[in-house]
Amino acid sequence: MYIDEPLRKYLDEAASGASTPGGGSVAALAGALGAALTSMVCNFTVGKKKYADVEAEVSQILSEADALRGKLLELMVEDTQVYGKVSAAYGMPRSTDEEKAARTAAIQDALKAAMGAPLEAAICCHRIMKLNEPLVDKGNQNLISDVGVAILLAESAMRSAIMNVEINLSYIKDEKLCQKTREKLRPLLAEATELRSKIYQQVNEAIKAELR
Amino acid sequence: MYIDEPLRKYLDEAASGASTPGGGSVAALAGALGAALTSMVCNFTVGKKKYADVEAEVSQILSEADALRGKLLELMVEDTQVYGKVSAAYGMPRSTDEEKAARTAAIQDALKAAMGAPLEAAICCHRIMKLNEPLVDKGNQNLISDVGVAILLAESAMRSAIMNVEINLSYIKDEKLCQKTREKLRPLLAEATELRSKIYQQVNEAIKAELR
Repeated sequence: MYIDEPLRKYLDEAASGASTPGGGSVAALAGALGAALTSMVCNFTVGKKKYADVEAEVSQILSEADALRGKLLELMVEDTQVYGKVSAAYGMPRSTDEEKAARTAAIQDALKAAMGAPLEAAICCHRIMKLNEPLVDKGNQNLISDVGVAILLAESAMRSAIMNVEINLSYIKDEKLCQKTREKLRPLLAEATELRSKIYQQVNEAIKAELR
Repeated sequence: MYIDEPLRKYLDEAASGASTPGGGSVAALAGALGAALTSMVCNFTVGKKKYADVEAEVSQILSEADALRGKLLELMVEDTQVYGKVSAAYGMPRSTDEEKAARTAAIQDALKAAMGAPLEAAICCHRIMKLNEPLVDKGNQNLISDVGVAILLAESAMRSAIMNVEINLSYIKDEKLCQKTREKLRPLLAEATELRSKIYQQVNEAIKAELR
C-alpha cells in the first residue's frame, strides 16, 4: 500500500478530502526522505580512496540509514491504518450505558495504538539527525548540501511526528502513560533544536552561504 | 518520470550512489508534501456549514495549494534533469584552448539553468508558508496539526532548495546574477524564520502541547 504505488497517488490522496494519509503519515515519509539523503552521502563516501580512513564508520552509518528509511516507509503506511481504527471506534454505537462504556474503552485503546506509529517515527527521525552529525566532517564534501537537506527534513519530520503524538495524548485519559510518553519526547525535542542549528550552520559555512 | 512510478523507486534511487535524485529534487518533493497537507486542510473546510464564512477565502487557498503541489512535483523531476546537464558539461573535452573555452561556457550555462529549479521551488515553498498563515484560524480546527506539519515541511524544504541554489551560485562567475539572485532569496529567508516560529507556536497552543 502506497510504497509500491505511484508517488502521485500518495500526494493526491494526502491532498484530498479523505482523512488518510494525513500529517502523521506525511511526517514519516519526510523522515524517510531525510534517511535517503543520509544514505546517498554515505554511498558517495564508502569505497573512495580519499575517505578510506572513515570507511568503517560511514559504512555503519549507511546501514543504519538504510534501515531507518525502510522503517519510516513502513510507518508511513502504518499511520494510515491505525488512524482508521480510531475513526472506527468513534463510530461505535452509544445508545446504552454498556455501549457507551465499550465505545469509550475502544477509543482509548485505538488512541494508544495510534500513538505508536508517530512516536516511533519521531525516534527514527532523531536517529537520522544524530547520524548526520559525524557526516558533516566525514562524508564526501561534494555532498555537504545533502547533509544539510537531510538534517532540515529530519528535524521538521521529527517535530511533525511529535505533534501527531501530542494530538493523541490530548485525548488519552491514562495520565501515567501521557507523562511517560512526554518524558521520552522531551530530550528528543531539546537536542533537535541544537543539532539542526549546529549542522545547518556548518553546512552553510562550507558552501560559503549566509542563510541565517 | 518518478511521478508515475512507485514511491519506493524514488526513495531507493535518492539513497543510492547515483547522483540523481539529490537534495534539490528531494527538497521539491518535501515542499509538495507540505502543499498536499495545505490542500487537505482546505478540503476539510470548504463545504462545511461551520466554516461557511471563510469558504471563499479557503477555496482560493485550495486552488493555489493544488497548483503549487503540481508545480513542485514537476520541479522534483526537472531538478534531476538539469543536474545531468551540469555533469555533461563538466565531462566535455579540454585538450585545446578552444575546447577549454567551450567547456567553461557550457558549464556556466548549465549552472545557470540548473539554478532555476531550486530557485522556483524555494519561491513555491515560501508561498505554501504564506497560505498556511490564515489557515491556522480559518481552516478546520480538527486539522490544526496538519497546518503545523505543512509549515514545518515548507520551511525546511525552502531552506533546502535555497542551499541548492547557493551551491550553484558558488560556481557561477556572473557576479551580477549572483547578487540579483541573493537579493531575491534574502526576504524569503527572513520571513521564513518568523512564519515558522509564529505558526508552529499557534499550533502548539491549539493542541495544548509544549514543544518548544
